[in-house]
Amino acid sequence: MKSITEDLIRNTIRIRPNQSHKGTYGRVTLVGGNQNMGGAIIMATTAAVYSGAGLVSTLTDMHNLSSLHSRLPEAMVANILDSNQIKKLIPGANVVVVGPGLGTDDQSKNILQLTLQNVQPNQIVIIDGSAITMVAQDKIKLPKAHIIFTPHQMEWQRLSGIKIADQKNQNLNQKVRDKLNAIVVLKSHHTQIYTSKDTFINPGGTPAQATGGMGDTLAGMIAGFTAQFKNTENAVLAAVYAHSAIADKLAERRYVVLPHQIAERIPFFMHNYQSFK
Amino acid sequence: MKSITEDLIRNTIRIRPNQSHKGTYGRVTLVGGNQNMGGAIIMATTAAVYSGAGLVSTLTDMHNLSSLHSRLPEAMVANILDSNQIKKLIPGANVVVVGPGLGTDDQSKNILQLTLQNVQPNQIVIIDGSAITMVAQDKIKLPKAHIIFTPHQMEWQRLSGIKIADQKNQNLNQKVRDKLNAIVVLKSHHTQIYTSKDTFINPGGTPAQATGGMGDTLAGMIAGFTAQFKNTENAVLAAVYAHSAIADKLAERRYVVLPHQIAERIPFFMHNYQSFK
Amino acid sequence: MKSITEDLIRNTIRIRPNQSHKGTYGRVTLVGGNQNMGGAIIMATTAAVYSGAGLVSTLTDMHNLSSLHSRLPEAMVANILDSNQIKKLIPGANVVVVGPGLGTDDQSKNILQLTLQNVQPNQIVIIDGSAITMVAQDKIKLPKAHIIFTPHQMEWQRLSGIKIADQKNQNLNQKVRDKLNAIVVLKSHHTQIYTSKDTFINPGGTPAQATGGMGDTLAGMIAGFTAQFKNTENAVLAAVYAHSAIADKLAERRYVVLPHQIAERIPFFMHNYQSFK
Amino acid sequence: MKSITEDLIRNTIRIRPNQSHKGTYGRVTLVGGNQNMGGAIIMATTAAVYSGAGLVSTLTDMHNLSSLHSRLPEAMVANILDSNQIKKLIPGANVVVVGPGLGTDDQSKNILQLTLQNVQPNQIVIIDGSAITMVAQDKIKLPKAHIIFTPHQMEWQRLSGIKIADQKNQNLNQKVRDKLNAIVVLKSHHTQIYTSKDTFINPGGTPAQATGGMGDTLAGMIAGFTAQFKNTENAVLAAVYAHSAIADKLAERRYVVLPHQIAERIPFFMHNYQSFK
Repeated sequence: MKSITEDLIRNTIRIRPNQSHKGTYGRVTLVGGNQNMGGAIIMATTAAVYSGAGLVSTLTDMHNLSSLHSRLPEAMVANILDSNQIKKLIPGANVVVVGPGLGTDDQSKNILQLTLQNVQPNQIVIIDGSAITMVAQDKIKLPKAHIIFTPHQMEWQRLSGIKIADQKNQNLNQKVRDKLNAIVVLKSHHTQIYTSKDTFINPGGTPAQATGGMGDTLAGMIAGFTAQFKNTENAVLAAVYAHSAIADKLAERRYVVLPHQIAERIPFFMHNYQSFK
Repeated sequence: MKSITEDLIRNTIRIRPNQSHKGTYGRVTLVGGNQNMGGAIIMATTAAVYSGAGLVSTLTDMHNLSSLHSRLPEAMVANILDSNQIKKLIPGANVVVVGPGLGTDDQSKNILQLTLQNVQPNQIVIIDGSAITMVAQDKIKLPKAHIIFTPHQMEWQRLSGIKIADQKNQNLNQKVRDKLNAIVVLKSHHTQIYTSKDTFINPGGTPAQATGGMGDTLAGMIAGFTAQFKNTENAVLAAVYAHSAIADKLAERRYVVLPHQIAERIPFFMHNYQSFK
Repeated sequence: MKSITEDLIRNTIRIRPNQSHKGTYGRVTLVGGNQNMGGAIIMATTAAVYSGAGLVSTLTDMHNLSSLHSRLPEAMVANILDSNQIKKLIPGANVVVVGPGLGTDDQSKNILQLTLQNVQPNQIVIIDGSAITMVAQDKIKLPKAHIIFTPHQMEWQRLSGIKIADQKNQNLNQKVRDKLNAIVVLKSHHTQIYTSKDTFINPGGTPAQATGGMGDTLAGMIAGFTAQFKNTENAVLAAVYAHSAIADKLAERRYVVLPHQIAERIPFFMHNYQSFK
Repeated sequence: MKSITEDLIRNTIRIRPNQSHKGTYGRVTLVGGNQNMGGAIIMATTAAVYSGAGLVSTLTDMHNLSSLHSRLPEAMVANILDSNQIKKLIPGANVVVVGPGLGTDDQSKNILQLTLQNVQPNQIVIIDGSAITMVAQDKIKLPKAHIIFTPHQMEWQRLSGIKIADQKNQNLNQKVRDKLNAIVVLKSHHTQIYTSKDTFINPGGTPAQATGGMGDTLAGMIAGFTAQFKNTENAVLAAVYAHSAIADKLAERRYVVLPHQIAERIPFFMHNYQSFK
């Protein structure tokens, strides 16, 4: 297993070309946030915007409209219960995130299915949180696309059938990943990333991050990074690395690091690591 | 009466173990916030999150949904008027806070009763603000659980029957505490804490704290601390100490210290005092 | 005409006594904010809270509930269209502010009348913005109370009948003030304050303050100061002085100073000027 | 083509006269923000307020009321679907902005038409975003007024009929501008400004600005500057220059610069460049 290196980050975060516009940096559509877990989709959306995605749209329960715009006027919002909006905003995106705060009831399942049905083969699709649980439990059909799963250990158990105690066995994880044909970001103290070529371990991470919403922020960062950087695997690795590197820095003075604080530091981190044109 | 010492704080706030996840740091459910006093539950929830509780859910009037998420995407929210949500979220918590901004009308009473009926024996229950008044006046039955009351002097008069002038008599206070079989945090300039073993006085505190919402913030801090630290009495003492120590520091430059400003400083305070693994 | 002096400020802002609680620092109730001008009552309420008032309640259109609590969880909110709430919250206050963002339509007039009918003789009542216009135009009966008017020049013309060009004549202003038997804060570049004893001029003030909402913030500050400091005239003078002194300081680096920025600096200003017990 | 110079900025941003009030600095009315793109009108409004406009009103979908006031209590809000409000607030303004987040459906068209029908000959009208697209596609009649268009390259193609590849030809752009009899701010890496007298190029700008909402912020700044400074062409040039100069500064430490961050720095930029009375 390889450790993610600073070099890899530097070789991923390119210096932005002068001749560019917001379209250059990708369109991200996020799907999530029911009436109870609106904060999750707010945090994911915030992370996508602060990572530098060119245009960000969020399909969410309209109860979350005011709070999302209060925190983040930079994102567009559409009604998650309006299937026409899903049919329009999913195909138009470069990267789709589905799951943060989505829930697992029947309505959530319908939304997940409609989202995945509208995914295009060239798209990157990040399946996070409750969407992983539903994919695991409800045998929802995965679309042809570049799929990224971001499970924590219990979600990986549900999806892979590998019990948490057995997840130390990387070969086992890798085998399920091969069947899924996806990038798997297995979140834990030192997050592991399983790709088609290799397995990586994230050197950073702090227990100060162990608080609700941390994964939503990571999902949004992966969206922002993959929307901008061509090599999807490296973009995922860079997002995972950046997420915990920022947290480690903040934890030098804080007992607990809140997800929204990480998001706000992303532009500074990326500035420091950008290194080629 | 013993003064709370820095040593006690240091012996309470442990350094977080690397092998941990948000579940390690406890689930807190808060119940409060009607249409008029939504700010109270926002402040209490904020304090619980910034204290480092792993997962925080808030049952409140849905009129408070947008403002709570605008300030704090890290918390989950459920409808306080939906009894199914109460029945689900109370038993699932390690620590319950009931009272901030709850009000004292019939609807508030029903909510308080349903909350207490769903409390489990192993849970910590912080009864604050209007919930104290209702317990005192409406003879609401207390559940078997680890109960903490956080009255100011008038609320203590209502609950204990001891007039404010007579509350200087610690033996009197202690006797009522023994009957209640609870930890009592009697808030005043130098807050007193009555436990089963001892009586403590908080050395800090500043009149700059004398403003609405200060108690809501303390209730949320006690929830966050007791959710994380095993010795409940010490966790309460540490929360009370931290609350006023942060206020004292902020008051070095401010005529009045606002509750939300205290919450934001909690992670820094705890970082400075963490001292054992 | 006397200039307001630093000495007067120092003799007004007392060092808070240790033995005190939020009740010591007064209850302020603000009335204002229709569907179009909710920002005005938010700014006034913010200024009252940051000035150190002990308990602050705001009667406003419920459309403003979320934004008010998003910015300021420390205040309580009630429905301005619920006459029972007006009847309850006005008599319970030490200081009433009526007018910021209230509007001048029939509904606004009813609210103003009901507010003034419930005023008690010992209360301080700050009549601001649209409420001044309505008092001037609709012959609304003023209650027996300690009344403070905070007109800008056009509002003073409406209320006093003195044309703006003639308002340089202080004797003229003073005569109308005597008839009104109120403190008049006549806002302009150097604001003038007419009291029963004297006329004062505010030495500070900057054109960087010439932006919407500045007066709402001043009204809230006057409420906060008069709620805390016994000598009402001095409290008004101190609030006017502090408002522009803070603005002058902020304008050293800013072309325009926004009202909410002034509010946030009030606790620092008051800390520097507190000087007796 | 002339480069915009620092000297021009200094000759445009005057030192505010002491004898002035909010009316001195103009009234701006903004029209935009449907249920999906409320963030756009929030960002435009914020930029107008932070640029120092004296009084700012925003006609928007009432779904955006709470988020707008949460971020910006300084603006007034009215219902964009209430034609009486449009008829009242448009003629009362010195500067009108129409377009940010307005959308292009039938309802949006009706709002645009009603807005333009109520424009007065002496007014400055900034036509931005979806409003440009609708003017181009729906042959909406332009009013007699001082019109400013702020298209990006695709919008300019729609409005002028000049394909993006041909937009390098300044004579071509200038000819269409002459027909339109408007100031055209053609946004790209180095934004070009076409006026009746000359063509200007903005020396600044960074790819860190390539993110959604950047244009909305510029539209609001142009409104704020033209509301305050007599020479409209110079005011437009100064706003364009300030917008990218602030972004360039922020990009020294950030990989991506968010629109709301630019708005917050406007008062500091203008303070540094004010230079005559």
